Amino acid sequence: MKFKYQCSECGSTYDLDPELTTCPSCQKNQRDNEPLRGVLEVLAEGTLPPSPADRNVALLPVPLEFFPPVPRITGELWHPLRLCEEMKLPELFIMNDGSNPTGSFKDRASVLVSAYAQQCGINSIVLASTGNAGSSMAGIGAAAGQKIVLFLPETAPPAKMIQALQYGATVYKVAGNYDMAYDLSLEYSEIMGGMNRNTAWNPMTMEGKKTVSLEIFSQLGDKAPDRVIVPTGDGCILGGVYKGFKDLLQFGLIKKMPRITAVQAEGSNALYRAWKSGSFDDSPSSTIADSISVDIPRNGYTALRYLNEFQGEVITVSDEQIIQAQTHLSSGSGLFTEPAGAAAWAGLVKHRDKISAGETVVVLATGSGLKDTATAMKGIHVPEQSIHTIKDVRG
Amino acid sequence: MKFKYQCSECGSTYDLDPELTTCPSCQKNQRDNEPLRGVLEVLAEGTLPPSPADRNVALLPVPLEFFPPVPRITGELWHPLRLCEEMKLPELFIMNDGSNPTGSFKDRASVLVSAYAQQCGINSIVLASTGNAGSSMAGIGAAAGQKIVLFLPETAPPAKMIQALQYGATVYKVAGNYDMAYDLSLEYSEIMGGMNRNTAWNPMTMEGKKTVSLEIFSQLGDKAPDRVIVPTGDGCILGGVYKGFKDLLQFGLIKKMPRITAVQAEGSNALYRAWKSGSFDDSPSSTIADSISVDIPRNGYTALRYLNEFQGEVITVSDEQIIQAQTHLSSGSGLFTEPAGAAAWAGLVKHRDKISAGETVVVLATGSGLKDTATAMKGIHVPEQSIHTIKDVRG
Ligand SMILES: [Zn+2]
Ligand SMILES: [Zn+2]
Repeated sequence: MKFKYQCSECGSTYDLDPELTTCPSCQKNQRDNEPLRGVLEVLAEGTLPPSPADRNVALLPVPLEFFPPVPRITGELWHPLRLCEEMKLPELFIMNDGSNPTGSFKDRASVLVSAYAQQCGINSIVLASTGNAGSSMAGIGAAAGQKIVLFLPETAPPAKMIQALQYGATVYKVAGNYDMAYDLSLEYSEIMGGMNRNTAWNPMTMEGKKTVSLEIFSQLGDKAPDRVIVPTGDGCILGGVYKGFKDLLQFGLIKKMPRITAVQAEGSNALYRAWKSGSFDDSPSSTIADSISVDIPRNGYTALRYLNEFQGEVITVSDEQIIQAQTHLSSGSGLFTEPAGAAAWAGLVKHRDKISAGETVVVLATGSGLKDTATAMKGIHVPEQSIHTIKDVRG
Repeated sequence: MKFKYQCSECGSTYDLDPELTTCPSCQKNQRDNEPLRGVLEVLAEGTLPPSPADRNVALLPVPLEFFPPVPRITGELWHPLRLCEEMKLPELFIMNDGSNPTGSFKDRASVLVSAYAQQCGINSIVLASTGNAGSSMAGIGAAAGQKIVLFLPETAPPAKMIQALQYGATVYKVAGNYDMAYDLSLEYSEIMGGMNRNTAWNPMTMEGKKTVSLEIFSQLGDKAPDRVIVPTGDGCILGGVYKGFKDLLQFGLIKKMPRITAVQAEGSNALYRAWKSGSFDDSPSSTIADSISVDIPRNGYTALRYLNEFQGEVITVSDEQIIQAQTHLSSGSGLFTEPAGAAAWAGLVKHRDKISAGETVVVLATGSGLKDTATAMKGIHVPEQSIHTIKDVRG
């Protein structure tokens, strides 16, 4: 298999190169406070091996020998029978990425970035994160023995910072939001060197995230779902989901692209607005689902292009609906996912009447609920009194 | 395959029966404040299928059709190359149970208890827990649609209670320790009915936990390790580990029992004291590793019997060593495990000179580090200041 970069905007191709981030010719048009211009995608050329496992490895642009020593990331496809019945969707599945090595979807990107840095002989990786990407890169980097420098907004949930520090990352708390952390991390890697792992900026992030689609296809028995419901903030997971199915289309393994339903929080709906209006405006975000809280959706242009090309759609849900969805999913299936993960479930509930009962639907649950227990508290009632004897129970 | 209960103390056998907990004839000798008398084990009789997956299913006393709709629990065997090198143990593996559905080892027991209750037509399950068993049973029960009633000491880490409540369990906070919760839960199930899932009390708990040994054997390529290092509180995980390998011995798949090294916290070392002295005394426990903090090791007699029969050993580690081990493991392998899980790693570090370099060693990491971030805070230094510009980094 051979691999190239291809600009998702102008189509120019380039050799893989750790110095190359976005497309140089499109980058010239980059304005402040808008999504990245010229996000690069990895283009695979060659012949695929027949077995699903070999095929999914062959579609990775870095050989396995450079991968960090953590278990291969496959995610776990749940078939939550009680919820299938309740929702009247017998072929409903949840792709749980909470069981990944650091407990989130972001491990898919981190593993590939780690492997690529290893292959290129680069031992330091820099990034900004709302929390999951940072703790993920810190953990995967620890396994590989790479130095990780992380810029984290001070509003990131404590568990994610504690995790990153446990893994030995250098953590800078930023007196501002994710977008400020993003800019600072780019400045840092420019001055100090190292590979920058920022979402969409590093082409290996979207390429790593595509593995979720390859795994969904494999775990459904080499069958594409009719619909995938994707929690969406900066558009990079959405882009990754599309990229994986695009690979499967390219190699003739599927005949058509699944319908993708992107779900945004009402308070952080930049992609939704652009999908409606056709262009990105600039407006501050606020939602309890920290992983999908972004002002500027860095991968917005790529995401929008995919949505338009393949008739995808964007819907929004309120924070209240997200909190309810988290408890609904936990108590209905035993899958406790973080608020961003629950956003996709909230989208399914809200959008249910647009989905026909025969559809095979996959909902992405992108991270462990243990990553943010403060928000999970909002959905439950904690008993106030402690009991002393069994009479306190019965009374 | 046929299954019976066999008393681990007097050897009496009984038919499986949800009403039967410990052996009636040994139970008569039960005194207050000592481990359970007459813990029952499941005895399998028949012929095993040849494939590892079929074999591991055949050794379960409940058919798969009764199992809750969560992914099969296999755990993940990590091969942490950097730590292997550092410890000069090339065949060192870590069995990670943090990736289980609810993030802990206890899911192994909960799944089997849930399945057995389902098979018996019992829809309510009652238990006491230091936290993990409770959140585990709550999650697995949610998947199965079973009602879970949980007695939790008020000192349980908040994340574990929040998780249980998210899953929809009825939670009673107990104004006392685990042992008080244990007694209250027995009183409750006696009055209110339902299957009691208390550790060791319900024979399916140890039987479920045995699956870790079956999986280690399978994932090592049908090869037993030389040594397994097991974090130990009430002795039920230890008993489960032995029971799994005993099954493999019984069916001729292994020739000898691996060496088992049980690791206790210095502040909660009842089994260690009994292993030294030959009998159990009664003394209060205190350790930051909540999952292995117990005054009375409920499965103590069974554990002690196994340790003596198969030349196992018990060692202790300090809370300080546990905290250091947690950071060491996280930063050396990318595996962030809770304090009780780190206790086994602390034991390996302390005990290293007793282990020969050629041994295949498996260390159990029994739960996700995200289950108790307050304790994880003790091992790290959180940055105090937030940065505003890149100058704040370089200065
Ligand atoms: Zn371009
Ligand atoms: Zn007996």
